Amino acid sequence: MAAPWAGSRRPGRNFLFVPGPTNVPDRVQRAMVVPMEDHRSSSFPELTLPLFEDLKKVFKSRDGQVFIFPSSGTGAWEAALTNTLSPGDKVLASRFGQFSTLWIDLAQRVGLDVEVQDEEWGRGADPDRIEEALRADREHRIKAVLVVHNETATGVTSDVGAVRRAIDAAGHPAMLYVDGVSSIGSIDFRASEWGVDCAITGSQKGLMLPAGLGIVCVSPRALAAAKTAECRRCYFDFADQAKANATGYFPYTPALPLLYGLRESMRCLFEEGLEQVFARHRFLADGTRAAVKAWGLTLCAQDPKWNSDTVSAIMVPEGINGAEVIDIAYRRYNMALGAGLSKVAGKLFRIGHLGDLNELMLLGALAGAEMAMCDAGIQVQPGSGVAAAQTHFRGATQTAEQRAAA
Amino acid sequence: MAAPWAGSRRPGRNFLFVPGPTNVPDRVQRAMVVPMEDHRSSSFPELTLPLFEDLKKVFKSRDGQVFIFPSSGTGAWEAALTNTLSPGDKVLASRFGQFSTLWIDLAQRVGLDVEVQDEEWGRGADPDRIEEALRADREHRIKAVLVVHNETATGVTSDVGAVRRAIDAAGHPAMLYVDGVSSIGSIDFRASEWGVDCAITGSQKGLMLPAGLGIVCVSPRALAAAKTAECRRCYFDFADQAKANATGYFPYTPALPLLYGLRESMRCLFEEGLEQVFARHRFLADGTRAAVKAWGLTLCAQDPKWNSDTVSAIMVPEGINGAEVIDIAYRRYNMALGAGLSKVAGKLFRIGHLGDLNELMLLGALAGAEMAMCDAGIQVQPGSGVAAAQTHFRGATQTAEQRAAA
Amino acid sequence: MAAPWAGSRRPGRNFLFVPGPTNVPDRVQRAMVVPMEDHRSSSFPELTLPLFEDLKKVFKSRDGQVFIFPSSGTGAWEAALTNTLSPGDKVLASRFGQFSTLWIDLAQRVGLDVEVQDEEWGRGADPDRIEEALRADREHRIKAVLVVHNETATGVTSDVGAVRRAIDAAGHPAMLYVDGVSSIGSIDFRASEWGVDCAITGSQKGLMLPAGLGIVCVSPRALAAAKTAECRRCYFDFADQAKANATGYFPYTPALPLLYGLRESMRCLFEEGLEQVFARHRFLADGTRAAVKAWGLTLCAQDPKWNSDTVSAIMVPEGINGAEVIDIAYRRYNMALGAGLSKVAGKLFRIGHLGDLNELMLLGALAGAEMAMCDAGIQVQPGSGVAAAQTHFRGATQTAEQRAAA
Amino acid sequence: MAAPWAGSRRPGRNFLFVPGPTNVPDRVQRAMVVPMEDHRSSSFPELTLPLFEDLKKVFKSRDGQVFIFPSSGTGAWEAALTNTLSPGDKVLASRFGQFSTLWIDLAQRVGLDVEVQDEEWGRGADPDRIEEALRADREHRIKAVLVVHNETATGVTSDVGAVRRAIDAAGHPAMLYVDGVSSIGSIDFRASEWGVDCAITGSQKGLMLPAGLGIVCVSPRALAAAKTAECRRCYFDFADQAKANATGYFPYTPALPLLYGLRESMRCLFEEGLEQVFARHRFLADGTRAAVKAWGLTLCAQDPKWNSDTVSAIMVPEGINGAEVIDIAYRRYNMALGAGLSKVAGKLFRIGHLGDLNELMLLGALAGAEMAMCDAGIQVQPGSGVAAAQTHFRGATQTAEQRAAA
Repeated sequence: MAAPWAGSRRPGRNFLFVPGPTNVPDRVQRAMVVPMEDHRSSSFPELTLPLFEDLKKVFKSRDGQVFIFPSSGTGAWEAALTNTLSPGDKVLASRFGQFSTLWIDLAQRVGLDVEVQDEEWGRGADPDRIEEALRADREHRIKAVLVVHNETATGVTSDVGAVRRAIDAAGHPAMLYVDGVSSIGSIDFRASEWGVDCAITGSQKGLMLPAGLGIVCVSPRALAAAKTAECRRCYFDFADQAKANATGYFPYTPALPLLYGLRESMRCLFEEGLEQVFARHRFLADGTRAAVKAWGLTLCAQDPKWNSDTVSAIMVPEGINGAEVIDIAYRRYNMALGAGLSKVAGKLFRIGHLGDLNELMLLGALAGAEMAMCDAGIQVQPGSGVAAAQTHFRGATQTAEQRAAA
Repeated sequence: MAAPWAGSRRPGRNFLFVPGPTNVPDRVQRAMVVPMEDHRSSSFPELTLPLFEDLKKVFKSRDGQVFIFPSSGTGAWEAALTNTLSPGDKVLASRFGQFSTLWIDLAQRVGLDVEVQDEEWGRGADPDRIEEALRADREHRIKAVLVVHNETATGVTSDVGAVRRAIDAAGHPAMLYVDGVSSIGSIDFRASEWGVDCAITGSQKGLMLPAGLGIVCVSPRALAAAKTAECRRCYFDFADQAKANATGYFPYTPALPLLYGLRESMRCLFEEGLEQVFARHRFLADGTRAAVKAWGLTLCAQDPKWNSDTVSAIMVPEGINGAEVIDIAYRRYNMALGAGLSKVAGKLFRIGHLGDLNELMLLGALAGAEMAMCDAGIQVQPGSGVAAAQTHFRGATQTAEQRAAA
Repeated sequence: MAAPWAGSRRPGRNFLFVPGPTNVPDRVQRAMVVPMEDHRSSSFPELTLPLFEDLKKVFKSRDGQVFIFPSSGTGAWEAALTNTLSPGDKVLASRFGQFSTLWIDLAQRVGLDVEVQDEEWGRGADPDRIEEALRADREHRIKAVLVVHNETATGVTSDVGAVRRAIDAAGHPAMLYVDGVSSIGSIDFRASEWGVDCAITGSQKGLMLPAGLGIVCVSPRALAAAKTAECRRCYFDFADQAKANATGYFPYTPALPLLYGLRESMRCLFEEGLEQVFARHRFLADGTRAAVKAWGLTLCAQDPKWNSDTVSAIMVPEGINGAEVIDIAYRRYNMALGAGLSKVAGKLFRIGHLGDLNELMLLGALAGAEMAMCDAGIQVQPGSGVAAAQTHFRGATQTAEQRAAA
Repeated sequence: MAAPWAGSRRPGRNFLFVPGPTNVPDRVQRAMVVPMEDHRSSSFPELTLPLFEDLKKVFKSRDGQVFIFPSSGTGAWEAALTNTLSPGDKVLASRFGQFSTLWIDLAQRVGLDVEVQDEEWGRGADPDRIEEALRADREHRIKAVLVVHNETATGVTSDVGAVRRAIDAAGHPAMLYVDGVSSIGSIDFRASEWGVDCAITGSQKGLMLPAGLGIVCVSPRALAAAKTAECRRCYFDFADQAKANATGYFPYTPALPLLYGLRESMRCLFEEGLEQVFARHRFLADGTRAAVKAWGLTLCAQDPKWNSDTVSAIMVPEGINGAEVIDIAYRRYNMALGAGLSKVAGKLFRIGHLGDLNELMLLGALAGAEMAMCDAGIQVQPGSGVAAAQTHFRGATQTAEQRAAA
């Protein structure tokens, strides 16, 4: 409880509004309570083989191959790069937030030569500049273009389809690698349509699971590249996985509860319908944005076209420390908000609105954010953001009902 | 999701704001996932004996004896009456809501002669009338006075201490039986101080467990009365229980997971501190009442002295059906509200604010209630109730911090 | 661990071989981990209505009505008697073990006039004597015949079909009430075929759940009798239940996790197939009996026709205290065995072999029983009972495979 | 159920007797059912900081630093090598089973120059040969000696203390890296006393958790070597971890449920007492070996000094395929046994006897192995192995009691 007289026990649920890990649905939580079993038994593939197929649907990949590593999303970043590229290979990467920064660091540490395109934080990958850089690369030294689909640090979503069109327009053979950790399963992602050669995600965001699975969806072309790629890899080797996966096994002991959880979380996604899941995220994000506007504040995203449907990074006024808002929210109101990272440390706080979420959960969080902002000295009208989001939610609902009735 | 395009799966948590069953805290949920065990083993009493002692603390009973039945609270009602009274015995009972009505029905069905004191719904037991009736009973035919401490149907809390004083003032030997199903563990209850002879509760309210345990705390005097009481009882017999309980056993197979859950839920209560638990309920109830006032609505409770800290019954305007609000809240916003029952059917809806609850959960519910009311045609300003509750929560928090700092 | 150097923590699973509660299957355990919900919501009947229908299949009742009480099986005993009979009504009951004794006690305590037919412990109900008593009752004062199908205390199964034939042969209108607590869901039970008017069970045996549900399946005739039956009842009243159950609700808060568990446990039974469940119990019981024979010991059941397929009560030799075997098994080998009760206290120990059980679990238990018996001074050859059971299991398996291959 | 008439549902528990993953104790299972939380919150270190300290106790390391990766044990192998060595560095490694083979493969794939000492499968690392090789390495080109403590494929435990003495006797500065995946937490392991520079384990064996954590305990000397080691690493980088771990955080999202599970599983180990845990494993392994002897079979381990206390690899007679035994055990008796791998494929089957295990669980498994062997045509006397193990268990128990009584 927020009240300062509270003892060590904090009653009620924590409001988890960081952009991952996200809330695990009850039925997924249940599905993970499994006894251990022999991962080499003859019945084990009954569990595993459908997982690979279902994940392809989540990635919207027709002909890709999916790999599931017992790791975080960082491991999946490493897997994508080390399996398909060789030390010294050049890659082109946009940098516009903490996660694009970290991925570029990782690329450099595994020995790649990264041509960085810095964009202002609050903007996303720039297809024009990418096209330009590719056109300039007459010798086709650039082997891959790296794009973060949804930059979790700034609440910015890049237009991956436009990046694909830019690569095509430049007539460049570079492969396209996309970090979809905080988008896949929440924001529409089309691996095949966009020609994504390596699509990367983790279990703890749109897949509504605890962290512990790093997942990569690899195009046939990237898979072919793996045969000659010389970056050293063992744990994250695609070939070892592919060989074992073919019959439903893994080269080493898999994280069993997460596999059962993954089966159930994908059932949740498919039951709701992927397109409906995306629409729901848009709906909740629009409500959040209406609240931000009512508060008289702005997003880090510099234009509506960059708005992320999974996380909103909200700029705090001059003279206010965003970390203070987060600290008050956590201590007084039992709510976890995301912090500003690196360049934007202190300048913003983030509300993650993804995963297993509905309107009332979000309205509670908006109410909590209002209180924490007020307590931190930001001049926002209590209830104003909540009211704006309510109006959005009610309007959309009524319109939809009228449409359904018509 | 509330939006009408939603499929069968409803994302996110249901907002459970009926006045019981209440949310089970995660740690209590975990505690109930136990393998079965022999309830006649030599180590079983290590689990059970402390339960009886700890429950006495919850009842604030110094010298009572606690019985735990595998039943609902209704079973505990029956246990209290049939163990201590004989067919034809006269009891005096206040009736001012659905649950006092049901208890009186039960008393009549087990053969008691009930003198009913009807109060207007929205008021509680009237100590003056009780005193009067007892004074009039010169022959001391009235064996017991029955009072519902917290009438869940109307959001009314009776003053049990005043009832005790009334009995004493009348110099009448009647025993005092109190239904504390929706108060005990949430609102201060003092079995010994108030001289309560049978205090009754269930597991699914302030004890934050699933339904399945009916619990009675019995004074030495009521226990003595059990020796001559002639109502027939077997399943609910105190003597069978007492004999087995003495060494930590039960006369028949107990509901094991609930016992483990009870141990953990009482740990939660004691860690937070019983007085702090009561203060938190008051704090959240005050926030709810501030919202109701901001909405321009009134409570069923006819005077602040009757206000319940565990449930608010909110009157809807003329021409509006409260059931409509509840239906919209459930279908569109995934929230469960309590209905108006019997005499007040359609005239009100109820928000339960008890158990494992904090400010943001409640603010989400108030936001949801606002939307449902608007959708049902009630003229309330979206965000107004939320804002009023926020102001209450922030003010109390700041005052407390200043006090702590001073 | 059994070894005396073990500390407070006991590694590994407890071997639970009491005749109930039984092991809860993992998937049933999972199914019970549910958030609380409004038991008056519009979607609640989706859970509850199929439960009543499915339970009828478990009882093999075509036209009965099933009631589910939040209680133990003892409550179901009381419900059956008090709803259908009036104080002073005469019933005929066989008594041949602790549970038939307790049921008779209960019948007397609710005011019935019980004509008791004592059988030797180790034998079951005697259809001939029942027929005789009914024939002698020319005035048809006997309203009901009470039979325990499976006497848990002695490992004896009565022939309920034969009792039905006896009643019919006598041309007597008495109703037939059967306690199937430790048989239903494990041993074939045919409510309609046998003309059982009240069939009683609990959740913690063949239904593989924790205790907490008392269940009665009532014939139309017994239901009609409920209209005039004058035993007082409230909590256990059929009419209140029937009224609420009709639309999928309950008159008071139900024990929610158990309802979800019940749904899943019946799915387990139906997936395996009821007849296969019965065959498996017979198969495991035969293995147990082969072990007993190899040990040179005898069952309490005095003739193979009385052998129970859910529990074997094993006589210990003169000079040995059966309680000692049980105590050693519990302390040294982390195994729970059933004790001898009342008349047979110390003279036997019981192995429950029902519920979610397979060969290896049972062989581990037989090995443990051998060790405990040896430690207690009984001259049994270590491994001898295990070997006999193994031989039984292997032979049956091979025969079945040959049959399947033919 | 084993019987061939069984349907899709297999009643009862699977007997999991592979040498990992091992059974998760109920209380550890419960501890992992946690809501997600912000892994960057101010209270998160309360969970994590004690884990590092407690793991040091499990490794028996005084001054090492422990790293916890979201990975399998294979990842921990890779972490140990890539953080402390450079491509082209020479290491000396004993090879005597499938897991030592795989580790050597991994070492080669990350670019190390491995001097392999092949031992016969069934024997362990040879300290004399190691000393000899080190003495021959006058230029101290060998940077590290790699030893698998417990070779899971053959049921062989190497004498790591003797290897340390060999290194010291040779006066060689090579570091000592030990794979303790299937020993740590089950067989005595003394990182500091034995001067182990990198000790490696996973979560799914002695730590009684699901797979998903790769754990390395690193000596100060190996940590210093990490500063100049040039193998590329990112995901498994010690420095990133060390920096974040210092204040209780991780460089990327941790596998939350496993951290809570780890806390609880170490509590289990410490409550039982590490030395008692080791004694229990020895006790159960001795029982298993008594059974093998009674069956007239032999272990893969060629001398009692190589016997593993966590897994027994049992040679099948000429003409019998070990895989057949495993297949029958799985299909008919719902038991998982370990297969012979690589060189010993078909020649043996393995019984894992580690983790949360007691006598009766093991006796059930021995009984099952007997049946499967008989069915596969091996001439073993049913019950013979069980009897031998029982005798061992009873004798040890009685001796201990006498000792305790003296």
